[in-house]
Amino acid sequence: MLFMKEHVAKQARRAKEASRKLAWVPVEVRDAALLAMADALEANQDEILEVNAKEVEAAKERGTRLNMIDRLTLTPKRIADMAEGIRQVVKLPDPLGTFDIDITRPNGLRIRRARVPFGVVGIIYEARPNVTADAIALCIKSANACILRGGSEAIRTNKKIVDVLRDAAIANGIPENVIEFISIIDRDSVVVMCRLRGLIDVIIPRGGAGLIERVIEHSTVPVIETGKGVCHTFIDETANLDMAVKVCVNAKTSRPSVCNAMETLLIHKAVAEEFLPKVAAALREKNVELHGDEACRKILPDMKEATEEDWTTEYNDLILSIKIVDDIEEAIAHINKYSSNHSDAIITEDKLHASKFRRWVDSSTVYVNASTRFTDGFEFGLGAEIGISTQKLHARGPMGLEALTTMKYLVDGNGQIR
Amino acid sequence: MLFMKEHVAKQARRAKEASRKLAWVPVEVRDAALLAMADALEANQDEILEVNAKEVEAAKERGTRLNMIDRLTLTPKRIADMAEGIRQVVKLPDPLGTFDIDITRPNGLRIRRARVPFGVVGIIYEARPNVTADAIALCIKSANACILRGGSEAIRTNKKIVDVLRDAAIANGIPENVIEFISIIDRDSVVVMCRLRGLIDVIIPRGGAGLIERVIEHSTVPVIETGKGVCHTFIDETANLDMAVKVCVNAKTSRPSVCNAMETLLIHKAVAEEFLPKVAAALREKNVELHGDEACRKILPDMKEATEEDWTTEYNDLILSIKIVDDIEEAIAHINKYSSNHSDAIITEDKLHASKFRRWVDSSTVYVNASTRFTDGFEFGLGAEIGISTQKLHARGPMGLEALTTMKYLVDGNGQIR
Repeated sequence: MLFMKEHVAKQARRAKEASRKLAWVPVEVRDAALLAMADALEANQDEILEVNAKEVEAAKERGTRLNMIDRLTLTPKRIADMAEGIRQVVKLPDPLGTFDIDITRPNGLRIRRARVPFGVVGIIYEARPNVTADAIALCIKSANACILRGGSEAIRTNKKIVDVLRDAAIANGIPENVIEFISIIDRDSVVVMCRLRGLIDVIIPRGGAGLIERVIEHSTVPVIETGKGVCHTFIDETANLDMAVKVCVNAKTSRPSVCNAMETLLIHKAVAEEFLPKVAAALREKNVELHGDEACRKILPDMKEATEEDWTTEYNDLILSIKIVDDIEEAIAHINKYSSNHSDAIITEDKLHASKFRRWVDSSTVYVNASTRFTDGFEFGLGAEIGISTQKLHARGPMGLEALTTMKYLVDGNGQIR
Repeated sequence: MLFMKEHVAKQARRAKEASRKLAWVPVEVRDAALLAMADALEANQDEILEVNAKEVEAAKERGTRLNMIDRLTLTPKRIADMAEGIRQVVKLPDPLGTFDIDITRPNGLRIRRARVPFGVVGIIYEARPNVTADAIALCIKSANACILRGGSEAIRTNKKIVDVLRDAAIANGIPENVIEFISIIDRDSVVVMCRLRGLIDVIIPRGGAGLIERVIEHSTVPVIETGKGVCHTFIDETANLDMAVKVCVNAKTSRPSVCNAMETLLIHKAVAEEFLPKVAAALREKNVELHGDEACRKILPDMKEATEEDWTTEYNDLILSIKIVDDIEEAIAHINKYSSNHSDAIITEDKLHASKFRRWVDSSTVYVNASTRFTDGFEFGLGAEIGISTQKLHARGPMGLEALTTMKYLVDGNGQIR
């Protein structure tokens, strides 16, 4: 523990030093390095897949759950997507160097506010190895050093990706120690990172509720909470029910393991008799297990009973909880009580209900007549994302480059006193 | 403790409910209410001063330090300043309702990002009663409910100010329970507030290092760190020394009890022999006690010796620590090691040194040839400020209305699936 503690602190100090150098590297150099890094990922695809295959094998032998295996597994397609993600980041404008305020006060003081990098960004994540490439790309583009702590089940895959990207970065003008990866397997390294206030400027946890709660509980470093997704879809009485079925099946089954998948379906009682059997049949065809409240089970007695726990659970799996509500007010109240404030949707043809839902649902992304699955950096046109913020401080929703910058006031005078 | 805990949670729940109503109140109503609140402050000046005089008296009897008495004391001028601060806030544009993103994606999804209120803002502060009026005004203007926890030594003054402002607000169309004040004197109410994640959306501590550290240590609610001011002024070898003396005297003595006052003076060795005696004489004339490092005491042997502790101390008093450095690099390194990242200044005629200092000093506000005393919402033209952020997340430097808003993605479709 002590050794690990000192080692992580040493990595953070190195990154802090390096971050000051990186802040001087012009965007042309950062972009050229990123393109070389994307190429390096593809050039080293076979080695990366080989390392990954071993880890997936080991996970299967441990009897790891299917959704976890899916997150852990790399394919040529997913590596190509990682490289494409990096190239997309290159295309984005430099988030730095601009002044969003530039005024001269009556006393002659010139006050400017500049966009600057954070310094050192700590990323704590779980199984999905593509996070490693996304995080590094966005940090380099925004001139931030990063310190990465991935899940133990993917540690060799992540380390391989980091080595490939780091070598390409350094060979193309990025300072050393800008990319730090914690390769010691020790659960406590999360807490150690969270206490390095002053060395790490912000911590972004990406993973399940357990990880995020742990980080929030222990961190003295400012945290951006991300990713927990207990997402709802509410079928209003005026909904186009055929559209509603399509949207629900997509939101639940297109990729159940991700945070923007639907976990709870709310149905207005006026359409429940007609809609519930339709949607249930379509979902069961995709092997979705349904947990319903009492009113649901009066219509479909063969559903499992939904308990209080279901309303707060992020299944990340082919399971869905369903509740029948009296009206839009009850739906909004349920969402504001149980939602993780990630993404929640209403299916309705009523403009007033749509605007009421938009205003009153207190979530980072609120949908009208669409699948919650679109909450994603690419889908929003931000390029690769560093995470999806479910808190209100600093950033909210999919976080691109902008979320990795802070500001700094520059005041120039000629001897002004107050 | 249990009673207090339940009482504070009850206040927060009330505020959360009320915040949803406040979000619907148009800016015209919020502005009209604020003007009425400013008038009410002045109309009730005598009662407020009477309550305050008693508390100041009691504080003096307890032998409270001079700088604390200064913070606690209200005068007709300071009440007029509070009212003027509220009126300034009315003049500011509504920070809400705008969309900083409004795009339509190829698949037809319209994605907008709206500026919205946080919901409930928690303010934890110490002696200065003007914070009560500033905080309430900025929260009402930005349509946030607030829950205030002030210092015990000013609790009657604060409660009186809250009562006056709340009555005027409610009489002018602001919903009830939008302004909650914790009137139970209990040190633990700070920690209780910090754990109300989900009910309080952000906590802003305003006060000394002790309070801020305590909040950061215990809070699971996102925190904006503010106000700790260990501010430096570096006298470069090319400095205009007459200007430097004026700036230093102003930065240290114009109001020593506030966070933007200078606490440490750094002097380039090339000008120390000439500058130190000059500035020391001018400062001692204002009764400033000087703590110098060894090099200083070779020039002025009658200075107290500066210890390691001096470099990290926010005196908030007529005390100054002084260090002689070899060059600008040592000055920058000292600042990045000991500064609270609030406000730091360089006095120089060398443009390259100025730009180096601007880029490398990692503080919220960096000055060239001016007094650090200008770091302030009014001086920056933001109107009354909610605090001065010394962290990098969400807001940095003086925080006006903008810092009290968050964003929300609104996605409209016609059945899009992914």
